Amino acid sequence: MYNKINIGLIGFGTIGSCVAEVLMERRGLLLKRSGIDFNLSLVCDKDLSSKRGVNIPKSMLTKDADRVINSPDIHIVVELIGGIHPAKEIVMKALSKGKHVVTANKLLLASEGVDILQKAGELNREIYFEASVAGGVPIIKAIREGMVGNRFSSVFGILNGTSNYILSSMSSEGSSFKTALKEAQSKGYAEKLPSLDIKGLDSSHKLAILSLLAFGKRVDLKDIYVEGIEDISNFDIQYAKELGYVVKLLAIAKRYGDELEVRVHPTLLPSEYLLSSVSGAYNAIYIEADLVGKQLFYGLGAGKLPTANAVVSDIVDIGHKIIRGENSAGSVIPKNTEIKRLRKMDEVVTRYYAHFSAIDKPGVLANIADLLGRHNISIASVVQKERSKAHIVPIIMLTHEAKELDMRAALSKINKLAAIKKRSIVIRMEK
Amino acid sequence: MYNKINIGLIGFGTIGSCVAEVLMERRGLLLKRSGIDFNLSLVCDKDLSSKRGVNIPKSMLTKDADRVINSPDIHIVVELIGGIHPAKEIVMKALSKGKHVVTANKLLLASEGVDILQKAGELNREIYFEASVAGGVPIIKAIREGMVGNRFSSVFGILNGTSNYILSSMSSEGSSFKTALKEAQSKGYAEKLPSLDIKGLDSSHKLAILSLLAFGKRVDLKDIYVEGIEDISNFDIQYAKELGYVVKLLAIAKRYGDELEVRVHPTLLPSEYLLSSVSGAYNAIYIEADLVGKQLFYGLGAGKLPTANAVVSDIVDIGHKIIRGENSAGSVIPKNTEIKRLRKMDEVVTRYYAHFSAIDKPGVLANIADLLGRHNISIASVVQKERSKAHIVPIIMLTHEAKELDMRAALSKINKLAAIKKRSIVIRMEK
Repeated sequence: MYNKINIGLIGFGTIGSCVAEVLMERRGLLLKRSGIDFNLSLVCDKDLSSKRGVNIPKSMLTKDADRVINSPDIHIVVELIGGIHPAKEIVMKALSKGKHVVTANKLLLASEGVDILQKAGELNREIYFEASVAGGVPIIKAIREGMVGNRFSSVFGILNGTSNYILSSMSSEGSSFKTALKEAQSKGYAEKLPSLDIKGLDSSHKLAILSLLAFGKRVDLKDIYVEGIEDISNFDIQYAKELGYVVKLLAIAKRYGDELEVRVHPTLLPSEYLLSSVSGAYNAIYIEADLVGKQLFYGLGAGKLPTANAVVSDIVDIGHKIIRGENSAGSVIPKNTEIKRLRKMDEVVTRYYAHFSAIDKPGVLANIADLLGRHNISIASVVQKERSKAHIVPIIMLTHEAKELDMRAALSKINKLAAIKKRSIVIRMEK
Repeated sequence: MYNKINIGLIGFGTIGSCVAEVLMERRGLLLKRSGIDFNLSLVCDKDLSSKRGVNIPKSMLTKDADRVINSPDIHIVVELIGGIHPAKEIVMKALSKGKHVVTANKLLLASEGVDILQKAGELNREIYFEASVAGGVPIIKAIREGMVGNRFSSVFGILNGTSNYILSSMSSEGSSFKTALKEAQSKGYAEKLPSLDIKGLDSSHKLAILSLLAFGKRVDLKDIYVEGIEDISNFDIQYAKELGYVVKLLAIAKRYGDELEVRVHPTLLPSEYLLSSVSGAYNAIYIEADLVGKQLFYGLGAGKLPTANAVVSDIVDIGHKIIRGENSAGSVIPKNTEIKRLRKMDEVVTRYYAHFSAIDKPGVLANIADLLGRHNISIASVVQKERSKAHIVPIIMLTHEAKELDMRAALSKINKLAAIKKRSIVIRMEK
């Protein structure tokens, strides 16, 4: 039996050229393992003059995306241009022309995923996007297929390698946020304009995708609470370490009955947790579900090879489905009517690490403790070290569980105290 | 579109009844997520009188496996009786009757996997066995599908929860092997006759399956070097900890060019490694491959719910394939002609932790060091603590990389020294 699947690639940048290279260099390996011959037949990009690390015959290159979409021979269109427009138009058009689609575009999936999945379902086409979350880690496959029978209770992820690299080097090298960011940029782990990464937005896109898959809940990006790592100082990281915690940028989706909480923010995790040991540019996703219990998936979340790996594995999966018969059920939107509403951030209950910068005079600690108490926040532990030369001393508190709304109210009053000299730092904790 | 898949279950023990329960209780959930109605239609066991936690109508129960295999309505046969015979005969017969098969039987796969996969391939039937390795962790799916385009260089696994539970509690509680084993038995983590687990055999069965999938190499069980954890003392665990290491029972498959190394033994791992943090009854598999880089998968390796999860996810996967069209390619045996031979244990090169029990008199250390040197083993560090009351003192050495053959030769001579009073303990190290 000989089966050939033709692939059209739209977007010939770093990832695109790596996908092309893997498909061509491993054509024999893929044939041996899958029984299918995957043939890269057309590659499209606006820029065909830049040098890539891979040699593609000129006859296979085009600047016209429609040529790929309209080609009757092509079975699978791979979209790797990124962004929402014209990526969405390209994907929708490809589906309606009968193509199956693979994409690595997390922003597209996070914003327009439901539309696109719906379209694919109606047309009995597949849309696969393993590369959109955690690069080479097959987390989407694990949730959709490996845990298909589970009811999920929580998904916690370190989903942004750049932020994790920065936080890890702040922790191990004792460097400041700025120094760690510069180092990450010079090593290629952070982009020149890293705000999507360090402000937590990239993580929120991936969280929206995971929430749809694990909880069947369409989450608008604007409904995800997002806080980045720019305000994390080395002082807090080192203090947290002393107290037995590690600071990680976590994307969290947690279910409480028929409600779902979705948030991205720096988080104190107990040092002995597996997630706490995930350092450098690595990603990890921790899942709790009723059949499997606790699982963790760890690997590189970015980089051209892991990303190309995910794209190629999607291509092979779709290839199998095509070969097995064209009466595909189409990509299914997970449905879980059990989630009735998203919790607002104000309702979230966590423990807090709080760092107050106060003038060292009698009564300050009592004032802070009193204000917290009035807002139903009880203190689990306090550390106030002896005054050095500085006039202002740090007071570190870990609270018991408290409501975000209460914490904000208390903070706003504490920040107005005459003895408080800098905006107080608050980092949520998870267990 | 309405699709119904009928399932026949053979083996109605702990796992079987849990699979039955999940299929019945979650029929609606699975239908919503997959678009397929999975109908448990027949359940077979020799013993139909014992109480199970699930109610099955009498009309669905049978003592006759042939009734399941011959039933024209049944699409998927689930084999959960364990052992090689008659499990193999049942699986082969089910395949030849046109059924797809799901099994959790690691011993069967490890011993007869190639035969069975071959048969399934010839008949265009599927055989799935996610539950056979690491329970609920979708490692087989990850290797076969998520990393389909990779060339693997190594697979390291903590594949036996019982052993890991024992080693973890020896490490954290300071208990002896015997005490830890008893505790594991009383908590239900170890069986009354735990030798398959603690002698490393269970891990070797799983390693044979992973080696076939990742390296395309059929490995006979007798060709896997296997050493269990019975000789690991608390002394060595605590000493390793002081030196910055953790002792884990690892199943290791490593590729060197066209050669493959397969071995199961207690191993010293640096404490800061992610694998070192895997404690209790958990499993984890660490993989290095050329596209994805380093990945780790973590979760419960046993227990009825995680195992049932894996069986159900296999059922759903096959269900999709059946619905999509019957011209299935059949299960494919991974082929990788690149592996030409298995390395013999004698050829293995690792670092070693060595613990010698010697009479405390001048020249003993020199004697040991000299014998090691003569066998090309160089010492990286030595710890000999001051003599307490005991006449015999422990000498702990970490060696540089050395050949197993050399280490054995040196050890046999060292053990014959008059000053050596107990058999020396050697534990291999990995980095």
